Amino acid sequence: MAPTPIQENLVTSNQTYASSFKDGHLALPPAKKYAVVTCMDARIDPAAAYGISLGDAHVIRNAGGNARDALRSLVISEQLLGTQEILLIKHTGCGMLTFKNEDAAGLVRKNLGEEAVGELAAFAGDFQPFAELDEAVKTDVAFLKASKLIPETVTISGWVYEVETGKVRSVV
Amino acid sequence: MAPTPIQENLVTSNQTYASSFKDGHLALPPAKKYAVVTCMDARIDPAAAYGISLGDAHVIRNAGGNARDALRSLVISEQLLGTQEILLIKHTGCGMLTFKNEDAAGLVRKNLGEEAVGELAAFAGDFQPFAELDEAVKTDVAFLKASKLIPETVTISGWVYEVETGKVRSVV
Repeated sequence: MAPTPIQENLVTSNQTYASSFKDGHLALPPAKKYAVVTCMDARIDPAAAYGISLGDAHVIRNAGGNARDALRSLVISEQLLGTQEILLIKHTGCGMLTFKNEDAAGLVRKNLGEEAVGELAAFAGDFQPFAELDEAVKTDVAFLKASKLIPETVTISGWVYEVETGKVRSVV
Repeated sequence: MAPTPIQENLVTSNQTYASSFKDGHLALPPAKKYAVVTCMDARIDPAAAYGISLGDAHVIRNAGGNARDALRSLVISEQLLGTQEILLIKHTGCGMLTFKNEDAAGLVRKNLGEEAVGELAAFAGDFQPFAELDEAVKTDVAFLKASKLIPETVTISGWVYEVETGKVRSVV
């Protein structure tokens, strides 16, 4: 099958990147021993906006910068790869502020049918939307602090990134 | 509490980033209508290595670049934000190649106790390790293609990123 424009862009951009690549020596465990949980949002470039150099930190991204979704990855990050700090960073203008579970399920039913609705059980039908940004940051940090899977020695802080200004502010 | 060095780095680096930020106009839906699923590994900078400009694509990252973990985010990406293509990119030297579920559960038991082991139920005790890289890419692409939650109109391709060379190669 002919490559799509998006696949062509991946290949072409990557050739340029690889041609000057000099970081093949970096070790598997993050050098600065921390993990960032943030949103998949297209307007966020974590390396640039959060000052993460190559090799320094695990970067976990999902819809909403959701802590529950990140739990498996965080346990691996800490228990197997030695990270000791978590930055949880949600953002303004997040898509998760714009809908409720029943809206998303309704779209799935309308566009993909009942069989697809059944598959939502894979994540308990919970898309993890939220109604208030700072509150959601606090809730997620509290969830991680309460989890026995994250030892108390791990420092956890919560932040908001503003897609309008590029600025990060501390929440908790 | 005094900020940690990692929190200080976030704040300081971000001040520099925000001081020349000019992308506050970007829209919520990804301009190029695609989503990338890749690993949280510290040695991967998706924007640079995969040629993703700010605003163009959702970037979902977790331990292993795992499709199952990414499902909630992908449904939101497609049903609510209009993406129509998925690039799934795993990588050489992945931590997920280095352990089995029982190893990880054993570490949790030893370091965090039985109560923590109980919490592994949140992800069915499955850390999603894999034994063979290209095979894992194929399995994950097949999983997404089989899911009724991803319409057949969505183009899905699978790739491997080489952390030693910075190169991407096509798998499926």
